[in-house]
Amino acid sequence: MLGVLGSIFWLLAGFMIIPLLVAVYYGESLQTFAIPLAITVFVASLFTLFFKRKDEEWNLKEGFFIVAIGWLVAAIFYSFPYMLEGVPPISALFESMSGVTATGATALIDIESHSRSLLFWRSMTQWLGGMGIIMLFIAILPKLGIAGRQMFRAEVPGLQEEQLRPRIRETAKILWLVYIVLSISELLILMIAGLSPYDAITHTFTSISCSGFSPYSDSIAAFNDPMVEGIIMVFMFLGGANFALHYKSIFSDRTSLIKDQEFKFYFAIIAIATLVLAYMLFKTEVYSLADAFRYSSFQVISILTTTGYATADFNLWPDSSRFILFLLMFIGGCAGSTSGGVKVVRLLLLLKYAQKVLFKVIHPKAIIPIRFNNKTVPEEVIHSIVSFMVIYLMIFFASSTLLSLMGMDFVTTLSASIATLGNVGPGLGLIGPMASFDSIPDPGKLVLIANMWIGRLEVFTVIVLLTPAFWKR
Amino acid sequence: MLGVLGSIFWLLAGFMIIPLLVAVYYGESLQTFAIPLAITVFVASLFTLFFKRKDEEWNLKEGFFIVAIGWLVAAIFYSFPYMLEGVPPISALFESMSGVTATGATALIDIESHSRSLLFWRSMTQWLGGMGIIMLFIAILPKLGIAGRQMFRAEVPGLQEEQLRPRIRETAKILWLVYIVLSISELLILMIAGLSPYDAITHTFTSISCSGFSPYSDSIAAFNDPMVEGIIMVFMFLGGANFALHYKSIFSDRTSLIKDQEFKFYFAIIAIATLVLAYMLFKTEVYSLADAFRYSSFQVISILTTTGYATADFNLWPDSSRFILFLLMFIGGCAGSTSGGVKVVRLLLLLKYAQKVLFKVIHPKAIIPIRFNNKTVPEEVIHSIVSFMVIYLMIFFASSTLLSLMGMDFVTTLSASIATLGNVGPGLGLIGPMASFDSIPDPGKLVLIANMWIGRLEVFTVIVLLTPAFWKR
Repeated sequence: MLGVLGSIFWLLAGFMIIPLLVAVYYGESLQTFAIPLAITVFVASLFTLFFKRKDEEWNLKEGFFIVAIGWLVAAIFYSFPYMLEGVPPISALFESMSGVTATGATALIDIESHSRSLLFWRSMTQWLGGMGIIMLFIAILPKLGIAGRQMFRAEVPGLQEEQLRPRIRETAKILWLVYIVLSISELLILMIAGLSPYDAITHTFTSISCSGFSPYSDSIAAFNDPMVEGIIMVFMFLGGANFALHYKSIFSDRTSLIKDQEFKFYFAIIAIATLVLAYMLFKTEVYSLADAFRYSSFQVISILTTTGYATADFNLWPDSSRFILFLLMFIGGCAGSTSGGVKVVRLLLLLKYAQKVLFKVIHPKAIIPIRFNNKTVPEEVIHSIVSFMVIYLMIFFASSTLLSLMGMDFVTTLSASIATLGNVGPGLGLIGPMASFDSIPDPGKLVLIANMWIGRLEVFTVIVLLTPAFWKR
Repeated sequence: MLGVLGSIFWLLAGFMIIPLLVAVYYGESLQTFAIPLAITVFVASLFTLFFKRKDEEWNLKEGFFIVAIGWLVAAIFYSFPYMLEGVPPISALFESMSGVTATGATALIDIESHSRSLLFWRSMTQWLGGMGIIMLFIAILPKLGIAGRQMFRAEVPGLQEEQLRPRIRETAKILWLVYIVLSISELLILMIAGLSPYDAITHTFTSISCSGFSPYSDSIAAFNDPMVEGIIMVFMFLGGANFALHYKSIFSDRTSLIKDQEFKFYFAIIAIATLVLAYMLFKTEVYSLADAFRYSSFQVISILTTTGYATADFNLWPDSSRFILFLLMFIGGCAGSTSGGVKVVRLLLLLKYAQKVLFKVIHPKAIIPIRFNNKTVPEEVIHSIVSFMVIYLMIFFASSTLLSLMGMDFVTTLSASIATLGNVGPGLGLIGPMASFDSIPDPGKLVLIANMWIGRLEVFTVIVLLTPAFWKR
C-alpha cells in the first residue's frame, strides 16, 4: 500500500515541472520550485526503493487511508513553494490545502507581491484538485461504500464493472476528457473576450474547478467587465454540475442534464437566490436594478458552486444579503461536480425525507418510497444521507466552537467554519472576499485546514481515520 | 372533539380568577382580568351549548389538533389582559405565547410600569404552561406515537395501561404532586432567604417551570444576592431534570435520578460549560475568579434549562462567551422536564448514533445496538430522533432566513430564532437579557410566536397541521 504513496509522490513531483517552466518563461527565481521538486523526487525515490507497489485490490481501510493521506501529503509538499517566497509555514500549509482541496480561501497578505509563477502554480493546484475531486466522487468513493453516491454510478454508461482499478482508469479517462474540453473552451472564450493568456489560464484553472483563487486580490472585480463575468459565471455553473451528465449530454443524450432532477433543483436555487438577493441589494439604493442583478447573479453562482470569486466586497453588504450567501455555503453544487458543500442532491433528498417523516406522523403505517429521477431511492441511501448531514453539522458546530473559543467574533466564526468545511473560500466578518485568513491566529488556521481536508473528502474519509476502530486489526 | 375545546375554555377561565383576586388584594383595576374572564366564560358557554363532549377515544389527528389548538387558544385569550394595559395586540400575543409556552422572551417595554397583578399573572401563566408541558411530554405525546419518548414511559411505574384517558389522569396526578411539592419547597426557601411573598411566588412560578419571566426588567440581577441566586439555580436545575425520575427518587428508589444516563450527561454539560465560561469571563479581567464562577454557573444553568433568567447582561460579554450560551440554547434540559430545546437525551443518542455511523463505515456489516440506561434503544427510536433533529434544524434555518430578510443582523437573527424555538427566552444582539423583543418588527414577532408554539409542542404537533395530508380525509 505504501507503494501507492510512492506513485502519488511521483505524480506530485511531475506536476511541479510546469510552474518551473513558467518561472523560466518569466525569468523569475527557479529555486521556488526547483527545491520542492528535488525534495519530492527524493521522497518519491525512497518510497519506490523501499516499498514495492503490488497490484493488489484495496480493502476499505486502505482505500480511505490512501485517499486521505494522499490529499494531506499533497498539501504538505505543495506548501514548500509558498514558504520559499516567505510565507510562514502554517499560512503556507493553509494556502496549499486551500489549493489542493479547491477551496480558494487565502492566507496571503499581499497577493500581487508574489511571483507570477507562484500565482500561476497556486491556481494550477486548484485545477488539479478539481480533477481529483470528480474522480474521487464518481470513481473512488462509491467503491468504498460511502453510500448516497452509489446512485450516481448508474449515470455513467459502460462503467458497471465491479473491480476497482480498471473502473477507475476508464472513468478517469472519460472525466479527464470532459474536464479538458470544458477548460479549453473557457480558456479560448476568455482570450477572445480580451484577457491576457496568463489571466485566462489562471482563471480557467480556478473557475471550472469551482475553487476561486485569483492572482488579483480584488478577484474578478479586478477586470470590472460584465462580459468576463458572464463567461466565468457560465463555467462556474457548468463546473458545479454533474460531470458524468456533461459526458452523457455531449456524447449520447443531449437532454441528460436538463432532465436531471438535481440539476433542475440546482438551477431553481440559483434563480430564486439571485432574485431575492438582487431585490435586497436594490433596496439598499446603492445599486441600480441592473447592477443589483449583475452582482447578485455572479455572487450567488460563485458561492453556491463554492467557487468563492467576488465581483464586489459582499462582506460590506447588509446582513440580510450576507445571510443569503451564508445559507448558500451550506448547500454547494451538484454531486459529481468540482464543487463542495453538502451537494444539492443531498438537500433535495433531505427535503423529501422531511416530507415523508411528516406524512408518517399522521399515517404511521404508510409505506412511502422516496423517488429521485423516477427511481425509488433505497432506504439505506436515505439513511446514509441523513447520517452524513448529522456528522457534517456536528463538525460545523465543533469547529465553530473551537474558533469562537480562540476569540473570534460570531460572524467570522460561523462563516469561516462553513466556508472551509464547504470548500467555498472566503467568508464574512474578518475573512471577507477582499480580506485574508492571515488575521486568524495559527491554531485557528489549523482548525480551518482540517475543515478543508475533511469537507473535501466527503467527511467520512478523513473522520474515520480518527476512530479507534480504524486502527484496530 | 370540539366539546373538549369547551372544557379547555372553562379551564382557561378558571385560572383567571386568581389574578383577579390579586388585583383585589393590591387594589388595582379589576377590568384587566374581569373583561377577559367574561369573554372566556362567554366562549366557553357557547362551546358547551353547541358541542357535546363525548367520551370518545381520540385518533392521532384529533390528538394533535387538540394539543396544538389548545395551546394557541390559551395564548390568544391570555393576551387580552396585556392589551387592556395598553400593550399593542401583536406584542400582547407575543407576551402571552411566551407565557403559556414557558419561554420567557418579553416584548414589554417598561416591565415595572405594569400593574402588580398583571406581572403576577404573567409569571403564573408560565407555571401553568410548565405543568402542561410535563403532561404533554410524559403522558400525551408518547400515546400519539411521536417516538423517541416511548422509552421514557417505562420510567413511570404503574402507568402501562394502553388507553389514553385513564393514563393521562393517573400520570397527571403524580406529576402535579411532584410539581407542587417542588414549587412549595422553593417558595418557602426563597421566603426564608428574605424575599417578599410576591417576589418569592412570582419567581417560583418561573424558575421551576424553566420559563424565566421576572417582574423586574433586571431579572435576577435585581436582587444581587448570591443566596437567592443559589436557591434559584437549584430549582432551575431540578426543573430541567426528568419529573418522572423526581417522582421515583422521592417515592421509591432514591438513586433513580443519579443512575440515569441522561441526568449524568445533563450534569456533565453544566459542569464543563460552567468551567469554560468561567475561564473566558475571568480572562476578560472584568470579573474576579469568584465572580466569574458565580455568573457563569448561573447563566449556564439558566440557559441550558431554557429558563432565561440573567444575573448579568451576558449580551455585553465577548463573543466567545456568547457563543457558548448560543450553543447551550440548542440543547435544553432533560426529557420529561419543564425545559425546552431538543433535550439532552436526544443529543446523547445522536452522539451515540454518530459513533455508530463512523464505525459502520469501516465495518459495513457490523450490527451495533445503541444502548441507553443499559437497554438497547430500538432502531425506530433512533430514526425518529434523527428525523426530529433534521426537521428542528430546518425550522431553525427557515425562521432565521425570514428574520434576516426582515433586516435583522446576523447575531439577532440566529439567537432570536433558537431562543424562541428552544423556548429559552432572551437571546443576543438586539434581544439580549436586558432588552425587549419590542424592537423586532411585527412580522418578525409573528415568526417568533410561531417558533415558540412549534418548539414547545415538540415540533411535530404543530408542523403536521400544516401538511395537506393532515386535512385530507
